[in-house]
Parts: sequence; C-alpha cells; structure tokens
Amino acid sequence: MNKLKQKFLKLIVLGLLLSPLGATSQTDEGALKNIYKTSLTNGMSYLWLDYLSNTIGGRLSGSTNAELAVQYTKRELEKLGLDKVWLQPVMVPKWERGEKEMAYISTNGELDKVNICALGGSVATPENGVKAKVIEVGSHKDLESLGEDKIKGKIVFINRALQPDLINTFEAYGGCSSERYRGAAEASKYGAVGTIVRSLSSRQDDYPHTGSMSYGDLPAEKRIPSAAISTNDAVKLSEALKKDKDLEFFFEMSCQQFDDVQSYNVIGEITGSEFPNEYIIVGGHLDSWDLGDGAHDDGAGVVQSMDVLRLLIENGIKPKRSIRVVLFMNEENGLRGGRKYAEIAKEKGEKHIFALESDAGGFTPRGFSFDGSDLMLKKIDTWRPLFKPYLIHFFEKGYSGADIGPLKNDDILLAGLRPDSQRYFDHHHAANDTFEHVNKRELELGAATMTALVYLVDKYGVEISLEMKDIKD
Amino acid sequence: MNKLKQKFLKLIVLGLLLSPLGATSQTDEGALKNIYKTSLTNGMSYLWLDYLSNTIGGRLSGSTNAELAVQYTKRELEKLGLDKVWLQPVMVPKWERGEKEMAYISTNGELDKVNICALGGSVATPENGVKAKVIEVGSHKDLESLGEDKIKGKIVFINRALQPDLINTFEAYGGCSSERYRGAAEASKYGAVGTIVRSLSSRQDDYPHTGSMSYGDLPAEKRIPSAAISTNDAVKLSEALKKDKDLEFFFEMSCQQFDDVQSYNVIGEITGSEFPNEYIIVGGHLDSWDLGDGAHDDGAGVVQSMDVLRLLIENGIKPKRSIRVVLFMNEENGLRGGRKYAEIAKEKGEKHIFALESDAGGFTPRGFSFDGSDLMLKKIDTWRPLFKPYLIHFFEKGYSGADIGPLKNDDILLAGLRPDSQRYFDHHHAANDTFEHVNKRELELGAATMTALVYLVDKYGVEISLEMKDIKD
Repeated sequence: MNKLKQKFLKLIVLGLLLSPLGATSQTDEGALKNIYKTSLTNGMSYLWLDYLSNTIGGRLSGSTNAELAVQYTKRELEKLGLDKVWLQPVMVPKWERGEKEMAYISTNGELDKVNICALGGSVATPENGVKAKVIEVGSHKDLESLGEDKIKGKIVFINRALQPDLINTFEAYGGCSSERYRGAAEASKYGAVGTIVRSLSSRQDDYPHTGSMSYGDLPAEKRIPSAAISTNDAVKLSEALKKDKDLEFFFEMSCQQFDDVQSYNVIGEITGSEFPNEYIIVGGHLDSWDLGDGAHDDGAGVVQSMDVLRLLIENGIKPKRSIRVVLFMNEENGLRGGRKYAEIAKEKGEKHIFALESDAGGFTPRGFSFDGSDLMLKKIDTWRPLFKPYLIHFFEKGYSGADIGPLKNDDILLAGLRPDSQRYFDHHHAANDTFEHVNKRELELGAATMTALVYLVDKYGVEISLEMKDIKD
Repeated sequence: MNKLKQKFLKLIVLGLLLSPLGATSQTDEGALKNIYKTSLTNGMSYLWLDYLSNTIGGRLSGSTNAELAVQYTKRELEKLGLDKVWLQPVMVPKWERGEKEMAYISTNGELDKVNICALGGSVATPENGVKAKVIEVGSHKDLESLGEDKIKGKIVFINRALQPDLINTFEAYGGCSSERYRGAAEASKYGAVGTIVRSLSSRQDDYPHTGSMSYGDLPAEKRIPSAAISTNDAVKLSEALKKDKDLEFFFEMSCQQFDDVQSYNVIGEITGSEFPNEYIIVGGHLDSWDLGDGAHDDGAGVVQSMDVLRLLIENGIKPKRSIRVVLFMNEENGLRGGRKYAEIAKEKGEKHIFALESDAGGFTPRGFSFDGSDLMLKKIDTWRPLFKPYLIHFFEKGYSGADIGPLKNDDILLAGLRPDSQRYFDHHHAANDTFEHVNKRELELGAATMTALVYLVDKYGVEISLEMKDIKD
C-alpha cells in the first residue's frame, strides 16, 4: 500500500474517532427513530413477558416451567420469520425448594416468626429442623478470628447490608454476594450447624431473597443448611441478640438436589447478507429463581432480546452479519447454558464479533457497559450522540453479562444493557419479582436501545481499523 | 477599569466557560459526595413522605387534609434549626368531589359499568345523572366542523391518547392536556350535555385520572358536567360505538364548588451569611388531587425540598445567600400559592436569583431543565461533570415548574428537577398515586441532586459576569 493511501486511511480512522457522529449518517438517525417508534407503538416484549411471567411463572433450571419456557419461546421465535430457530441441548442441575421454609427466634420462652428462604443449592435441615444459638458476624471473613470455640454448634448469622451510598446498586450487591455464595462453606469449617444470611436487598421489607450458594469441595456430611432472612427480620434478629445473646434460632427446610436433567438454550438467527460467518448475539437467560415469576430477572432480558430481531425485521433492516438471539438456560445456578453456547461456538469456529446481554432488569435503559479493547470502545463512543434523544447517556467500560462471559476473547466486544438500577435489588430473587413491577414503556425502551446498538454494530462492525486490515496485502 | 484588568477578567470569564470544571474545585466534589451520602444514609424525605401520604393522605386545596399538611410541614421545618419558618396566607378555591361517581354504557338493553371521575372544577350532573347519546371526537378542535347539528343534546367523548413514541412523557401529556382543560367549555358551545375525556395516562388500565378543567367565561347555566374515563374504558366505549352508534352513556356526579377559603404557603429560611438579600428558593406543592395520596404529585417535591435545607445543615454548609424552602398551596387548581409568593416577593423588593421546583414525581433524577439566559445556562453547564458520578446527565433549556413560573424575570434562573418520566403518568392524578409507588432511594437521590445544585448556585451565583459587574464603578 503506498504512503498516500496509508495517510488517507489514517485520516478516515481519525475522522471516525473525532467526528461527533463518527461514520454514522442521517440514515442512522432515521433508523433509530423508527426502531424506538416501533418498539413503543408495536412492541411484542410486554405481551411475551406477560405470558412468561403470568402463564408460566418462575422457571428454575430443570423444572417443568423451565421446559415450558423453552417450548414457548421457540414457538414464538418460529413465528417471526427468522432464517433458523433451534434448541441447543445442555444438561442442567435440578434443585427444588420443597415445602415453604419455617423459622423463628426463641427468646425468654417466646417464639417470634421470621421470613426466610433456602438459598439455591442448600441442603435441607434434618426433618425436625435445626435449633441452636446464634453468632452474628458482619462477614464470613470474621469467622477465622472467632474460631471454632465460639462457632461450633451454633448458627452463623451473616448480617451484611448493601452499602446504601453507592449509586450503582450492582456495586453494593457485588460487595455482599460472596457472603451468600460462600458463607455456609466457610461457617461449616468451624463447626457451625447452619447459616442465615441477610437478604441482598436495597430495601427494608419482609421478603427473603434467594440466590445461589456453594459448598465448594466440602464432603456431604459437612454441608450445613443455609437460608436468607428478610432485611426487616435481619434487623429484628440483630436487635434481639443485643438483648439476649443466648436466644435460639429455629429453621426448617426440605430442599433437595436431584441428578442433572436435559434442557436447552433457545436460539434464533437472521443469517447475514454479506458476512454470514460473522455473528452478533443478543440474549438473556430463560431460567429464573422460583419465588417470584422472574419478570425482571430475567424475563425482561429474554423478551427484549427476542424483540431485537423482530424490530430489525419490522423496520426492513436486512443485516450484513448473522444476528442471533440466544436465550440461555441456567444462568442462576450453574451457567451451563452460557458455557455450552461458547463451547459449541468454539468447536464450530464461529467468529463472534459482538455479544449483548440484558440481565439487569426491565427498567428505563440508561446505556451500556462494554468489555472490549480500547479501540472498540472509542469507535462505539462515536455513536453516543445518536442515542441522546432517547436519554441514553451511559457508555462505560465494565461488566457485560454472565451468560456471554464465556465467549470472551480478543476479537469480541461484549456489552451489557444498563437500565436504571435503583429498584432492581428490591425484587431480585424474591417473591416480588413479578410482572406488575415491570413498566411497559421502560421494557420497550430497553428493547429499542438494544436493537439500535445491534443495528449500528451490524452496519459498522466493532473494529476501528477493519478497512485498513482488509486492504493490507 | 484599565484595559489590563479588563483583559484579565475576560480571561476568567472565558476560563469559566471553557474549563471542564468551570470554577468548581475538589472541595465541590467532596461536598457533593457528602450530600448524596447523607441523603442515602440519613435522609428524612421518605419518612416525611410516609406521614404526608399515609397519615394525612390526599390534600386538595381548601380541604382539612390540606390544612393538616400545612401544620405538619411547618412543625417539621421548625425542628430543623432554620433561621425562620412562617406561613404565608393565601385564599384558595375549594371544590369537592362528593360521592363516588357512577357511569355505564347502555347498549341493546345491556348496561356495562365503566370507571370515571369528575374533573376538578366540574359542576355536578343533575341529581338523577345525565343519560344521552355519545359523539366521539379525537380533539375538541374537531367540534367546530361537526357543528351544533351533530352535537346538541349529546355527550361529547374526547378520545385522545398520549402519543406513545415521545420519549419524554410530559411532551405526550402536553399534547393532550387542553382536551381535559377546555373540552367541556368548547363542547358546551355546541349544545353538548356533558363531556367524557380519555384519561391522560401512559398506561392501559382501569384508573380514571382527574385534573383541572375550566369553563372560561361561560355563564353558570351553560356549564356542563365533565369527567375523565379510564384508558381501558375509553377503548371499550370507542369499540362499543363502532358497533352501536346510538348507544347511550349515563353518568352521575355530585361535585360542588364552594367559596374560597383561607390557606397558606409554608416557608422556611436559612439566612445568607454574605448576601442575605439574595434569595434562592426550592419548592414543591403541598396540595394534591383527592383520589390518591399525592405521593408523587407532589408529596415527593415537598419532602425533597424540605430535605434540601436539612442536608445543607447536616453537612455543615453555611450558605452565603438566603435559601428558602417554599411549599406552595394550590398548584393543582388555581396556582394561587405560586402567584401569592411572587406578588409578595415583588412587593418587598426581594431579589430572587434562583428558583428550583420538584414537581415531576419522586423517580430517579436524570437532571434539570433550565429557564434563564444563555449565559446562565453556559455557566451551569460547566458544573455538569460534578454530577456524572450520580448519573445526572440532563442539563437542558426548558420548562421549570408551575409554582415558580410567576417569579420569572431577566435576573432569575428557574429550574425544574427532571426525574425519569416513564412511570409518572401511570399515577398522575389517579387513585394509584400512592406512597408504595415511590422508591426510597430514588426519592433520596432527587433530594441530593437538588441540594447539590442549590449548593453550587449559592457558592458561585448564576451570573457569569457577576465579578465584572461588581468591579465596574
């Protein structure tokens, strides 16, 4: 390539970086306008979510409801006129809560009922429950200094609240989630007979919030039952302990782990017109916890992702690259679906350039966080002005999503939709994660925002120096 | 002033405009951090709102509840250690809904009940209600072309939906609000016997939404009863009319207008340490419609404004200018409080430099709209980076608020807090504008965002050339 040509190409690249609209055009402004309009006036996401939440309900991996969700979303995708729709088999864990849990505080001969739920993956209590004294800690990291002397035979109560002054509630959640995930395994090492973890909720209320936990490599006989307690009852228990450190806590749970069962990722594809072997995927996870109907986590992401492909079709956009919607199974307690998808993609040598996940609730979208090279991020950032009319302002480097994480390599850009986070952990993994807490417009704005980004990535790619690479010989 | 000095001052002014942080400093970053932290960990707004919503309830002007709200907020302000707290007398209209309204569609001998509510200011129906044929229009502007022939003796049904593809729902509301306000006055001119207006809601549901209407200068005998119908029932009525254009609609309302009564604006002040005669005010309106408890409209704005002064005090900030919280009476159906405050301020020659209103719901704050000179807006815009950590990105020229509108002149900057608007009109003026639909963190973020702006305006003023003016002699 001669020097003049090189200079010219450098200028193009520089232009992409510096021009306020990058390589985008008025056509793009119009395309985004149409995409948002179609979603807000003729979206399908809310109707699909209604069915998934209200007709099917909670969809824990391995459950009948999870299978119903697989069948339903496959059927709905088949109606959209995609080029392909298929099921990708994956074996998933199966855990069941059993009967509703029961717990109380026993102090000075009085019993005071509290709201708990088993953490996902916990063993049951013995048939007649566990009753023991309680030792309260702020974190499982405090256990070591307390030692076996003070812990043995007791129930460990991990009372760690989400830090309220963090603006992004996911950061506050991240600061506590290892208490839930590892608390029981750590407490067991010192002879505890159970753990009670304060619910990872931003609110003070009576809902216990479940979520996954793990015993690591503890042998079966060392596994102790582990439950979440509502934030109100965590405060109540802590206050009660201040008055009577010898009070007893009772809880009873009948949860059970079964053998793995067959399940599926649900996949639909519009095959690309120019680069059919370059893949863009958009997805959420089909499974949910069992207490609510999983409307925010992650019914919202599922139906928004389905609507991305439909909104492209409705607006007559014929993608150059192949666009897939992937509805992952088993994000909540295993990530088997995400791992399987990446494994098969690798086996087949499929080149994935972009993956977008929506798994942060169906609230008003604020933007995206991106996980990719700095050059990719610079390119994406030139598209930011196109999103301003839709109040989408957040384009930051950060976490994308659990299901698409296994696809990570140097050539892919990963992204997560970032809705407003303030209410998310009020509902997350609890009985109040239900359809009526999802707002139709907010959900539809999310679907449109995702579609807009997929449209731009398909049109312009994510590599800023793509043209230069192509011309080099 | 010599030329060198002039040049130097110009450079300062230019610096203010160009430097990314303007004249702000690291101290400001710290101050904002403390303000947000205090609001999120030790805010009072949610507790106050609980009382205002759940203990008092709906607070229509002239009602006992409105007086209870005056007394309660005055008492609470007196606890804060302000320099002054007082009541500003204002006469307000008094309208009462009376018994719950009743309405049905009568078609082919079958009666189908629908959900309506009287619009604020409407006359009652005759004692036995109104029953008449219906003519449906998309707007009161269609009435002229239909003429008396087609309208006389009928009920006019104005079926105008909020435009769903507008991102800002206030724009969609603005496009329909004159139907509610003027519909009855216009329909009466052509001999209609009543008007039924589709509720100004973004949602399809069963809640009728009230709001103010006016007969203009129509004589008493020409005033016809006017009601809002729920969005679901507007669709139902429209469908029924397609099948049977001769169906009859019945409605019964017993609302009543009384003589004006004495009420009050509630005002609290921290007197400025350097410029006590320059006033900054922050406010919301104490009155609300009667169907819900007025938590979003505008309990949220009231308690956020009260907390602005408290958050300044809690953070040891001693303002240079005088900061007032003004809780306006009668925004909903008269604006008497806003007008009275401006009238008295003018009489006393009080120099108001900045007024901020929160009257758009207690949802996650996104930013502000500003009504002031371009230079003021440029200055304010230099503060934008300070708000980025709090996801406050919207700084645009636009509408401020109804209550502070009467203060407008060339020297004042008016501003309105802009929370996320997607859910606002789901609740606005309806029975579901209630406390449980306000999220504590979102409310507190709004209070902090308002406090941060008041802090900056107090510290730096709104006039970009203030220093130059001061030095001129």
